Amino acid sequence: MTRPTPMPFAALPAAAWRADGRVRFSDCDPAGIVFFANWFTLANAAIEDLFEDALGVDFHDLHGRRRIGTGFAHAAADYFAPGLMGDRVTITPLVTRVGGASYALTVHIHRAEAELARLQLITATTNLDARRAIPIPDDLRAALLAYRDRCTA
Amino acid sequence: MTRPTPMPFAALPAAAWRADGRVRFSDCDPAGIVFFANWFTLANAAIEDLFEDALGVDFHDLHGRRRIGTGFAHAAADYFAPGLMGDRVTITPLVTRVGGASYALTVHIHRAEAELARLQLITATTNLDARRAIPIPDDLRAALLAYRDRCTA
Amino acid sequence: MTRPTPMPFAALPAAAWRADGRVRFSDCDPAGIVFFANWFTLANAAIEDLFEDALGVDFHDLHGRRRIGTGFAHAAADYFAPGLMGDRVTITPLVTRVGGASYALTVHIHRAEAELARLQLITATTNLDARRAIPIPDDLRAALLAYRDRCTA
Amino acid sequence: MTRPTPMPFAALPAAAWRADGRVRFSDCDPAGIVFFANWFTLANAAIEDLFEDALGVDFHDLHGRRRIGTGFAHAAADYFAPGLMGDRVTITPLVTRVGGASYALTVHIHRAEAELARLQLITATTNLDARRAIPIPDDLRAALLAYRDRCTA
Repeated sequence: MTRPTPMPFAALPAAAWRADGRVRFSDCDPAGIVFFANWFTLANAAIEDLFEDALGVDFHDLHGRRRIGTGFAHAAADYFAPGLMGDRVTITPLVTRVGGASYALTVHIHRAEAELARLQLITATTNLDARRAIPIPDDLRAALLAYRDRCTA
Repeated sequence: MTRPTPMPFAALPAAAWRADGRVRFSDCDPAGIVFFANWFTLANAAIEDLFEDALGVDFHDLHGRRRIGTGFAHAAADYFAPGLMGDRVTITPLVTRVGGASYALTVHIHRAEAELARLQLITATTNLDARRAIPIPDDLRAALLAYRDRCTA
Repeated sequence: MTRPTPMPFAALPAAAWRADGRVRFSDCDPAGIVFFANWFTLANAAIEDLFEDALGVDFHDLHGRRRIGTGFAHAAADYFAPGLMGDRVTITPLVTRVGGASYALTVHIHRAEAELARLQLITATTNLDARRAIPIPDDLRAALLAYRDRCTA
Repeated sequence: MTRPTPMPFAALPAAAWRADGRVRFSDCDPAGIVFFANWFTLANAAIEDLFEDALGVDFHDLHGRRRIGTGFAHAAADYFAPGLMGDRVTITPLVTRVGGASYALTVHIHRAEAELARLQLITATTNLDARRAIPIPDDLRAALLAYRDRCTA
C-alpha cells in the first residue's frame, strides 16, 4: 500500500465548498486527540451541509420523506497528524466519481495549512424501506456532477 | 478499486480469537442500521479485549501508565450488509503485518455466517507525551507475531 | 437539592437483574474518565438486555416492528466517582414506578462495591409513527410490575 | 417530582449568550429523533464556546495545560419535544449557582420558540492529575459571576 502524502490547504480547488468545524472535548479520547472514528462523524456532518449549501438537495428530506439512503459501501481514512481539543478545522469534500448507483467523495480535513486527515467515501444509494440499491436520483446526480465540474474547472 | 467479497465465517482461521458483540439502539441511525463510523468503535472495543485475552498486554495500562499510544495511521472499512438493532455479531481481528513502528489488523464482523463488514487498520505506536512514533514495544511485538502465527498455522 | 449518597453493591436487592459492562477507551475523554453522557448510553444498552432477559419483551422488535418507542421524558445522573478505562462495571436497573403512559427506572452502576453513578430515567411510551404518547403496552406493563415486585419482595 | 414546563425562547434573558447548533444524522436514533444522551454532548460543546466567547476562559487550555477538570457531579435533562434530523437549535446556558468548588448551569435548547430540552448541570472543579476537588479558579469564578449578573440584570 502506498501511503498518501498530506496536501496543503492552498492546493485544494479554489471553487470547492468548505465547512468550518471544531474539535470538541467529547471528540477526543484519553490520548487527548480526536478518536479516529469521530473524523468520519465530523465528515458526515459536513456532507449534510454540502448537500444543502452546494448541491441544493435536502439531506434530511432525502432520508426522511423520500426514504433514500446514502449509506456507505466503503469508508477509509489516512491520518496525517492528530486533531487536538479546540482545534479549528476546515472540511472540504470533493466529488471524485459519479456512477450508476454509487458515488465517491474525498474529504480533506485541514487545520490551517496542514492536512490532518483525508477520507475516501463510497456512497451507495438505497431505498431505505426495501433496503436495496437504487440508481442515484436525478436531482442528486446532476448536482454531484455540477459540483465536481465546478471543482475541476 | 477492486471491491472485496464477503467471506463466510467458517473460512476464518479456527485458531483466531473472537469477540461477541451486540448492535445497540444507540449504534443505529435514522436509517435503522449501524451508523458506519460506529463499526470502527465496536472493532476498537474488540481490540482492547484481544490485547488482554489473546496478546496478554493490558491495553489500558499501555495507554494509561506506560503512555504508549496505538493510534491509527489508516483505517478502512468495506460494508457488505447493514447491521440491525439487536444483531448479535462476532468480531474477529487478525494480525496481517508487523513492522518496525506499525502493525496492521484486519477485523471481520459477522452475523452468523454472513460477513457484514471488514476493516483494515494500520496502527502506529507512539509516545503519548511526546506525540512521536516509537518502535512497537517488545512485549507487544512478540505477542502480535505469536498471534499471527497461531492464526496462519 | 439534596445530593444522594452512594450505595454499596451489597445493598441492592439480591433478586435484581444485572448487566456486566466494561469501560472502553472510546467511552473516555481527555480527562481519562468516562465522558458523562456516555453513562446514559451504557445504561441504555443494559436496559435493552433487561427487556430481553428479565422482562421477556424484545426491545428491538418493540421499536422496529411494533413501532413503540420508549424514549425519555427525564434523565438524570449523580456521579459519585469517575469510571476509568478498562473498568469492569455492574449495571443494575430497578423499576421504581409504573404509571399509565410512563415508567421510571433507577440504574445503579458499580465497580465492585463502589457505586460510580446512579441514573434516574423516566420513560414515556410513544407511537413512533404518530409521535404521540400511548399507554404502556400490556405485556410490558405486566413485566415491569413483575420485575418490580421481584426486586422488592 | 414536579415536571417543569417548557419556556418560550423569548422568555430567556436578552443578555444571555447563545450557541447555534444543528441536529445531525448521527445524533439521531432509529426512532428518527435525537438520542437522549446526545443532548448532553451538544450542550457540552456549547459550554466550550461559552467559556471562550462569554467567559473569556479557554476551555481546552483549562483542561489541557492547566489540568483543571470541569466534570459533572450531576446532570439532568427534561425532554419536552423530540429533536429531528436537520433541526436548527439554539442552545442557551445560564449560570444558576456559583459555590466554592462547584457551579450550576441550566442549558435551554430551543427550536425557534419551542423549548425541546432543558438541562441542569452541576460542575465540580478538579485537579485532573490528582483527581480531587479543588476550588473554582479565580478567573473562572469571576467570569461565572459576571455572566450570571449580566443575565439577571
